[in-house]
Amino acid sequence: MTAPQFKQLRRAYGFDEVAIVPGEVSLNPELVELGLDVGDHHFDIPFMASAMDAVVDPSFAIEMHQCGGLATLNLEGVWARYDDPDSLLQEVASASRDESTSILQNAYQRPIREDLVARRIQEIKEGGAIASVAVTPMNTKRFAPLVQEAGADILVVQSTVTTARHESTSLEGLRFEKLLDSIHIPVIVGNTVGFNATLEIMRTGVAGVLVGVGPGAACTSREVLGIGVPQVTATIDCAAARDFYYRESGRYVPIITDGGIRTGGDVCKCVAAGADGVMMGSPFAATTEAPGRGYHWGMATPHANLPRGVRVQVGVRTTLQKTLFGPTSRTDGTENLVGALRTAMAMCGAHNPREFQQAEMVIAPAIKTEGKIYQFAQADT
Amino acid sequence: MTAPQFKQLRRAYGFDEVAIVPGEVSLNPELVELGLDVGDHHFDIPFMASAMDAVVDPSFAIEMHQCGGLATLNLEGVWARYDDPDSLLQEVASASRDESTSILQNAYQRPIREDLVARRIQEIKEGGAIASVAVTPMNTKRFAPLVQEAGADILVVQSTVTTARHESTSLEGLRFEKLLDSIHIPVIVGNTVGFNATLEIMRTGVAGVLVGVGPGAACTSREVLGIGVPQVTATIDCAAARDFYYRESGRYVPIITDGGIRTGGDVCKCVAAGADGVMMGSPFAATTEAPGRGYHWGMATPHANLPRGVRVQVGVRTTLQKTLFGPTSRTDGTENLVGALRTAMAMCGAHNPREFQQAEMVIAPAIKTEGKIYQFAQADT
Amino acid sequence: MTAPQFKQLRRAYGFDEVAIVPGEVSLNPELVELGLDVGDHHFDIPFMASAMDAVVDPSFAIEMHQCGGLATLNLEGVWARYDDPDSLLQEVASASRDESTSILQNAYQRPIREDLVARRIQEIKEGGAIASVAVTPMNTKRFAPLVQEAGADILVVQSTVTTARHESTSLEGLRFEKLLDSIHIPVIVGNTVGFNATLEIMRTGVAGVLVGVGPGAACTSREVLGIGVPQVTATIDCAAARDFYYRESGRYVPIITDGGIRTGGDVCKCVAAGADGVMMGSPFAATTEAPGRGYHWGMATPHANLPRGVRVQVGVRTTLQKTLFGPTSRTDGTENLVGALRTAMAMCGAHNPREFQQAEMVIAPAIKTEGKIYQFAQADT
Amino acid sequence: MTAPQFKQLRRAYGFDEVAIVPGEVSLNPELVELGLDVGDHHFDIPFMASAMDAVVDPSFAIEMHQCGGLATLNLEGVWARYDDPDSLLQEVASASRDESTSILQNAYQRPIREDLVARRIQEIKEGGAIASVAVTPMNTKRFAPLVQEAGADILVVQSTVTTARHESTSLEGLRFEKLLDSIHIPVIVGNTVGFNATLEIMRTGVAGVLVGVGPGAACTSREVLGIGVPQVTATIDCAAARDFYYRESGRYVPIITDGGIRTGGDVCKCVAAGADGVMMGSPFAATTEAPGRGYHWGMATPHANLPRGVRVQVGVRTTLQKTLFGPTSRTDGTENLVGALRTAMAMCGAHNPREFQQAEMVIAPAIKTEGKIYQFAQADT
Repeated sequence: MTAPQFKQLRRAYGFDEVAIVPGEVSLNPELVELGLDVGDHHFDIPFMASAMDAVVDPSFAIEMHQCGGLATLNLEGVWARYDDPDSLLQEVASASRDESTSILQNAYQRPIREDLVARRIQEIKEGGAIASVAVTPMNTKRFAPLVQEAGADILVVQSTVTTARHESTSLEGLRFEKLLDSIHIPVIVGNTVGFNATLEIMRTGVAGVLVGVGPGAACTSREVLGIGVPQVTATIDCAAARDFYYRESGRYVPIITDGGIRTGGDVCKCVAAGADGVMMGSPFAATTEAPGRGYHWGMATPHANLPRGVRVQVGVRTTLQKTLFGPTSRTDGTENLVGALRTAMAMCGAHNPREFQQAEMVIAPAIKTEGKIYQFAQADT
Repeated sequence: MTAPQFKQLRRAYGFDEVAIVPGEVSLNPELVELGLDVGDHHFDIPFMASAMDAVVDPSFAIEMHQCGGLATLNLEGVWARYDDPDSLLQEVASASRDESTSILQNAYQRPIREDLVARRIQEIKEGGAIASVAVTPMNTKRFAPLVQEAGADILVVQSTVTTARHESTSLEGLRFEKLLDSIHIPVIVGNTVGFNATLEIMRTGVAGVLVGVGPGAACTSREVLGIGVPQVTATIDCAAARDFYYRESGRYVPIITDGGIRTGGDVCKCVAAGADGVMMGSPFAATTEAPGRGYHWGMATPHANLPRGVRVQVGVRTTLQKTLFGPTSRTDGTENLVGALRTAMAMCGAHNPREFQQAEMVIAPAIKTEGKIYQFAQADT
Repeated sequence: MTAPQFKQLRRAYGFDEVAIVPGEVSLNPELVELGLDVGDHHFDIPFMASAMDAVVDPSFAIEMHQCGGLATLNLEGVWARYDDPDSLLQEVASASRDESTSILQNAYQRPIREDLVARRIQEIKEGGAIASVAVTPMNTKRFAPLVQEAGADILVVQSTVTTARHESTSLEGLRFEKLLDSIHIPVIVGNTVGFNATLEIMRTGVAGVLVGVGPGAACTSREVLGIGVPQVTATIDCAAARDFYYRESGRYVPIITDGGIRTGGDVCKCVAAGADGVMMGSPFAATTEAPGRGYHWGMATPHANLPRGVRVQVGVRTTLQKTLFGPTSRTDGTENLVGALRTAMAMCGAHNPREFQQAEMVIAPAIKTEGKIYQFAQADT
Repeated sequence: MTAPQFKQLRRAYGFDEVAIVPGEVSLNPELVELGLDVGDHHFDIPFMASAMDAVVDPSFAIEMHQCGGLATLNLEGVWARYDDPDSLLQEVASASRDESTSILQNAYQRPIREDLVARRIQEIKEGGAIASVAVTPMNTKRFAPLVQEAGADILVVQSTVTTARHESTSLEGLRFEKLLDSIHIPVIVGNTVGFNATLEIMRTGVAGVLVGVGPGAACTSREVLGIGVPQVTATIDCAAARDFYYRESGRYVPIITDGGIRTGGDVCKCVAAGADGVMMGSPFAATTEAPGRGYHWGMATPHANLPRGVRVQVGVRTTLQKTLFGPTSRTDGTENLVGALRTAMAMCGAHNPREFQQAEMVIAPAIKTEGKIYQFAQADT
């Protein structure tokens, strides 16, 4: 008779539970180099805007390119279903909280139009920007040729959970190896968590991996499905897979932490935990450049019979320029994210993200006072 | 001289402290098979409704059967004490919070009528449903023959804590081996926690075990008695006993997690932790089909001199059909529980509950913000 | 060069962080025996009332004796300084929260009168009760002969922290060995935490030890001094010392957990953690029999220049009889504490406290919802 | 192929997560000796006031000297930029919370005047006090000779993170070995965390080290930069470095814990964790002697384009004398800090800080009730 077997649970950590520890060396911030490479594309800053309808439209993508980062357009959202989604976005913003989910569910019933898919890509290209567009695995075989033909530079294949081995009812589901044989632009795949799942995806030849399941502000995967991994642990696990694959193959596949990032502190913790870049929704949704009028929602929010996510109100608070580069008088970490990353790296003696990935981190829960999370800070009221 | 001996405490985990991790494989949800077998009875969905007076009456049991699940009727509550408890239920619902406990204490002073016990079973059978009824261990010897004779299909023997070895002041207490010799319908026993206690119960020959002491929303066992085990750990421990007993005996005795389950996420975590099915009160109490008018209470709430539990208000929010199958616009995990389980299993590559029991889980405390528990989600207000 | 030495911290647990796990055996509650022996005195129930001025006066001590427990009178408080402290207690109860500390500080400036010390003891004895009285170590040499002569049955020597080795500026401080040589009534000493400190006190020959530093509701030792040990760990440590000393000496010295106990659940956790009895203030302060008019405060609250504690409002909610024995309609664990202990012991198969001390416990933090601590229970509002 | 490498995180602890455990010996408080030596200077009490503009001006420094402690004046703040900053401090105190950061940013644009640097030092010296002044590493080479010439007794070189190895864009950055060769007054350096970083700084020959990054009430380093270490762990790590360096060199370099200290309990925990002294802002900012009118802010708050910190309102509540020595009627640990330290040390049998550093500590999270942190104490409301 074998011994009883009890399921073992590992502790996972989120942003509010960790902190970065300075080391023995410090730098002047001017000595810090940022930057991120995806395929042959170089980005001056490792910041990406999420493929959310309320965050990225073609003009936002152009602005983001001019700032040195990358914004990805969702090709299965309102920009691909409506000639002009402006009045729809206004309706969503005006709705009560209770109505908002069903309005979104209705809006996404309208079919995706292939002419709009092509037109949005062209609009981004006409603005001089790198065109990055997102489709779900289910629609990838249908849209990938179209996307490439329309001139897209980067294809993002994204769903809540994407694996290298998906079983479907159709004769053959999406296989990334076959997809990569058929198109010549870099493909970023996500989302994933876990060492093995990430390693398998990297071995298919993709150009980047999006890390994060269930941690985003617009996501209720944990409430509805019980699924999710706090982002610091998710990033650490996937960084281990990236480094393992790099030693195995000599190919360096960047990982981009996606979901739940709200402050400069969160950005710094992502990179210190092992990320090469960050993808964010909330902070960009709050800019005047975003089309969402101070609201945003995730891609699973409009799901017809099991919505997972809510419309989140962030307000229109600032500009994209100030969000990324400041200067700012805000002290809550929501502006000058690039400056914050540069400063934190300097304090830790890191010349580049790769060095910052080696920073020591501690588990250091935020202090909770008066029902609000304070990270060791308490303002006057 | 021997060394000092310090009592050791093991960490136990509840729903809000864990999450499920997707793996290397994912499925289309259509490939997922649900289902639960208890004795010779097969249920299409592994969902059971708790033997609570405010949740299950005969008509609710019939509806639940039609949905593919199982509802158990409490044979020691108002349905067995009153010809028509309608006005009583109205009184409970109208009472102030402070009055409600003593009204319930009074109501349960009325004796249990054997004619009503039989009549309720017949009502369920006339509706074409499997008749599952619950009695306490103290009354089991008295009611078991009556229940069987009245045509019940499943007998549930349930109290806060039930063990295979109970010492009583009478000459001989309930022995499950003897009970099972005397009746021929499957017996489900509960509640239990812990590897050894569960293993001992399984070895008596029972057909199923209810898992959970002290975690339910209508239960204050931890406040009053200090007793209770968070449900994820309770489920893991009992699942280990089930698997151990299966290897020992070749007989597979399903375990049903009972208590504290509120959302689809909780359901998924139960199965991922090792459960074969779930028993719920709150989510069903909130349906139009439940007799409780938006309230519910546990079986220990009406205890005459040491009530352990309170009347809980959940409101009448939805239908049984929508609770189980959706479609829904709610994003808080309280509707389309079957769809949620199917989706989560698909994301984790699990073709059936037995495979889902192997899913990786992490300890991942919910983020608490503004005095409210958010599971990585924050809605606009 | 030796390796760096980092201070190690051990995790300690309080009531709200643990729970008791039922085992493989259960009992009918009628089979449970309670009871506590201190010296030659037997108490039917292991409940003691704290030596707090707002909780115990002579008449309360008599009532408590009739219930089967023990109440200790503070011989350095208002009952030993005022002929009739009634108007003072009224003033404290009427004061604003901000004024209350300085009123108490003033009130305790009045000298202790030896005639009152003797009179209070006689009042208790005239009521037919065991007279238990408390003094601080600083005053023990002065009062012990007087107390014994006045007919006291039990002497409690109590301060925030009492050790067997106290260094004072006077030629010789209190030595328990010498004290015990000079008087013939049992001496209970406290408070203490920690295996070694407790073992040293037991070896001096005392009849009982009070366990607990810094956990009580009327105590702010942790805020003011940083000192304190959560009660479950304190009890576990001292129980280990008691068992060690019992094996060493053959003498069984009961430990009484004192401080922070509010509910039946807390009482049960104390005994399951290893206590032989419990000493409580808050629950008794809320009875009609207590002199404090619904308020209470600790012995360090009136300290002249460093008060550690506050006046706590608990209200006058119930009677001593109902607090101990019920029946009750309250479901928050504050009434029928004896019934709760008996029920919990029965669920865990414990025939007596000594067996209950062997119960399994888990670390199971209370769920915190909406800014309030819920122990897996949420009432309607 | 090497095994996967996962980043490991160590748990770090803050004040509200730990408590001190009394031991086997206790003392009369009169037997406790406090005191701190920095270079040749002896201080009767190990309390320092932070170099914050709202806390320390020359007259506060004189008062603090008379109390036996040390206050350090910030030489890069308003006292070195304005002849009379009185109206500016009034403006800051009158501003709304939202305006306050930008007012501070503007105020600190004005240049530092060398004549004022000298004048402030002279003002302190004329009051008969030890003159301790703070500069940032960036300005140290410029100001150090001036400061010494003006008669300062102690130089504090302080920034958020200061290391012995700083890389700058200029030909040569600050090297402490060279600085210490060039001036003859003791130099205290900070802030630092971590064993290695502290050891490296001590090896340069400094006279003291300030411990703490990111924990202070006026600091938002963790929100903006993700950087910070809870103070108890930071102190433990640096105390290990001090003891290691002492064994290595025979030279004892005191460490002063700086940031986030609010109560007597916090002070006691610092010393028990290994500190030789404490540096505080908030408690002193609340005195009538402080120039901030009940507000304070950190040195990174006025940063021009990435402010890290906020104006914190503490109110004007008490005097410096009562804060340090009482007597008090406050029970929240904010007054009589010296008495609290003395009492706690007596309870733990510590004759001096060095012995108190050996006290046992436990991890004992504060109980959080009703949205507020209570440390085992709950007052009436």
